[in-house]
Amino acid sequence: MIGNFTYCNPTKLYFGKDALEGLKEELPKYGKNVLLVYGGGSIKKNGIYDAVVALLKACRKEIFEDGGVMPNPSYAKVCEGIERARAAKADLILAVGGGSVCDYAKAVSVSVHCEEDAWEKYFIRFEEPSCEIIPVGCVLTMVGTGSEMNGGSVITNHAQKLKIGHVFGEEVFPKFSILNPEFTYTVPRYQMVSGIYDIMSHILEQYFSGTDDNTSDYLSEGLLRSLIRSADIAIENPLDYEARSNIMWTATWALNTLIAKGKTTDWMVHMLGQAVAAHTDATHGMTLAAVTVPYYNFLLPYGTAKFARYAENVWGVDPAGKPQEEVAREGLRRMQAWMQKLGLVMNITDLGATREMLDGMVKSTLIMDGGYKVMDENDVRNVLLQSF
Amino acid sequence: MIGNFTYCNPTKLYFGKDALEGLKEELPKYGKNVLLVYGGGSIKKNGIYDAVVALLKACRKEIFEDGGVMPNPSYAKVCEGIERARAAKADLILAVGGGSVCDYAKAVSVSVHCEEDAWEKYFIRFEEPSCEIIPVGCVLTMVGTGSEMNGGSVITNHAQKLKIGHVFGEEVFPKFSILNPEFTYTVPRYQMVSGIYDIMSHILEQYFSGTDDNTSDYLSEGLLRSLIRSADIAIENPLDYEARSNIMWTATWALNTLIAKGKTTDWMVHMLGQAVAAHTDATHGMTLAAVTVPYYNFLLPYGTAKFARYAENVWGVDPAGKPQEEVAREGLRRMQAWMQKLGLVMNITDLGATREMLDGMVKSTLIMDGGYKVMDENDVRNVLLQSF
Repeated sequence: MIGNFTYCNPTKLYFGKDALEGLKEELPKYGKNVLLVYGGGSIKKNGIYDAVVALLKACRKEIFEDGGVMPNPSYAKVCEGIERARAAKADLILAVGGGSVCDYAKAVSVSVHCEEDAWEKYFIRFEEPSCEIIPVGCVLTMVGTGSEMNGGSVITNHAQKLKIGHVFGEEVFPKFSILNPEFTYTVPRYQMVSGIYDIMSHILEQYFSGTDDNTSDYLSEGLLRSLIRSADIAIENPLDYEARSNIMWTATWALNTLIAKGKTTDWMVHMLGQAVAAHTDATHGMTLAAVTVPYYNFLLPYGTAKFARYAENVWGVDPAGKPQEEVAREGLRRMQAWMQKLGLVMNITDLGATREMLDGMVKSTLIMDGGYKVMDENDVRNVLLQSF
Repeated sequence: MIGNFTYCNPTKLYFGKDALEGLKEELPKYGKNVLLVYGGGSIKKNGIYDAVVALLKACRKEIFEDGGVMPNPSYAKVCEGIERARAAKADLILAVGGGSVCDYAKAVSVSVHCEEDAWEKYFIRFEEPSCEIIPVGCVLTMVGTGSEMNGGSVITNHAQKLKIGHVFGEEVFPKFSILNPEFTYTVPRYQMVSGIYDIMSHILEQYFSGTDDNTSDYLSEGLLRSLIRSADIAIENPLDYEARSNIMWTATWALNTLIAKGKTTDWMVHMLGQAVAAHTDATHGMTLAAVTVPYYNFLLPYGTAKFARYAENVWGVDPAGKPQEEVAREGLRRMQAWMQKLGLVMNITDLGATREMLDGMVKSTLIMDGGYKVMDENDVRNVLLQSF
């Protein structure tokens, strides 16, 4: 832990089979008007919508609906949400869904009282809110993004072919989040494994940076080991409560600022994946999986010691008698085999990317500078080419 | 993560060489009157007192002093602090010191406006505060207890020969804590290694309980590995910033509620150590070290699988071809050797305990019921006998 940093994460979490009861504690803290935000309507089939509405009514809330939030929520939809929140005079935005719904709720929450163009202010200029922020609460139904306990909000501007995430400060974090692992049971397998890989990528992209000895990296190794073990169980038996609950908790701690403390971070898998998504609208975790092996093969020579540590501490590679690079490469091979077993999409062709999109995807890739090697445009192009 | 639980930790941390600057952010949030709490005066020699007072004055605070807080802070001293805080009409209690000073500040904070006897209410009946709580901030100068980011307060009642900890809810947590690893450089070696073992014991006492697969245990293993590595460096070179900063950060996360989430915990090493301290006034971490090996030798047969996991994942014991119990015992032997290398006190005789105190220590030991084996009075007596 070399650098100076601050840490504060005020989100209150209610975890477990009875977590929804937490709404009874939380709802009375806010005013009457609740904007109820959700996605494509699956919560109306699995009973979660009814349970939430019943609790809202029991707490005498006025409910204003804002459904239809899509995966990769669009800025056009955010603009619609802003209008709905204004019309409702919303005192609380209650997001019921996965990371897209939570991200969307945060984007609306900082924009309702913002007099500037929200896209320009938050996602191009990366400014912090200077206006009143509507408090957000989450009821999580899909696991992966960590949006339930952080300030992250990823929004796609289709007109500009940009999918950009802004990590807001703690005043934008959800005030509370309801984490019931059983609410994730009905998520289709494709979404479940996509979420699992999103979690893994969050941890790895914070882990694969820096050369110091940092407690954060030891915590990351712990989270990775727990995630791999529980994912192996969940793909065999998606109704294993213990495994699903460990995955849910791991997701939260993979991206709530803790494991980045005191260290640099990389984030290029997300930048590459988001560029792919901006052109294909593919599922987030799958875009990460599809560029991971080419990107880490590119990165490994610049951070060989850390990749070897990863191989030993996470994948149990025995380093005895092997050169460090061989240990490191063996770790990546084991990860690749595991990803294939999980059923992740391992190339961007299968996500709908075409060679005609290449120039555009290169242009859409934001280049971060915290990793072992700062990419140039040619590196981006080569990694994307390897990902077809 | 099987059970239902809530998680919320609102303490704001400022970490690093510039951490004290955080006071400029925090002090303006509180009223004029600050009760400045500290220990035996070492902060007046190493410049920390002067730096804090300068910042308090720059923020136009009225300073009321309450020095002389002893290790194992006494309830008699708490009563004195209550009177001082009342006389000062304190708006903020600023604790500058180690865990004892932070614990003391919290005990005072919940007692100033309490009309009942605070010892009876909080440390015998374990009730939560029903009165106004004075906010507490910490400037940490010694590492180990985790008091900087939790609701724990351990107070000794000498008249009753009881040293008892109450873990208060999040409203009693420090509002902010200043964590500058350099502030811990002047702590004598005996206190440094005692603090390191306090951290280790916090992690182990949460780890050695439960048989489920729980993400918390993976996080604990990460913290343990980081702690062992950094302790090895710090005992060779106490001025190694990286090592001291990792130890400081590990201490905070070892006891801020995270690694106990979703699982049972044991805590008998603390109960035994606190009984020893109540009769000897010995340094906290050393009392834990002195009873650890006898207690874990007692406990191992009831939780062999977890002790074997500990041996493999934390101490690198190769399990190939060995019975589980042998793997488990090898882990304990490696820990014992490491404790000796650190210079920990390995028996209670060296801490001043005598056979005449045995009955009293047995009587002072609170028995917790979360571990692999709930002790009876005879078990307590035997483990203490083994600890002489």
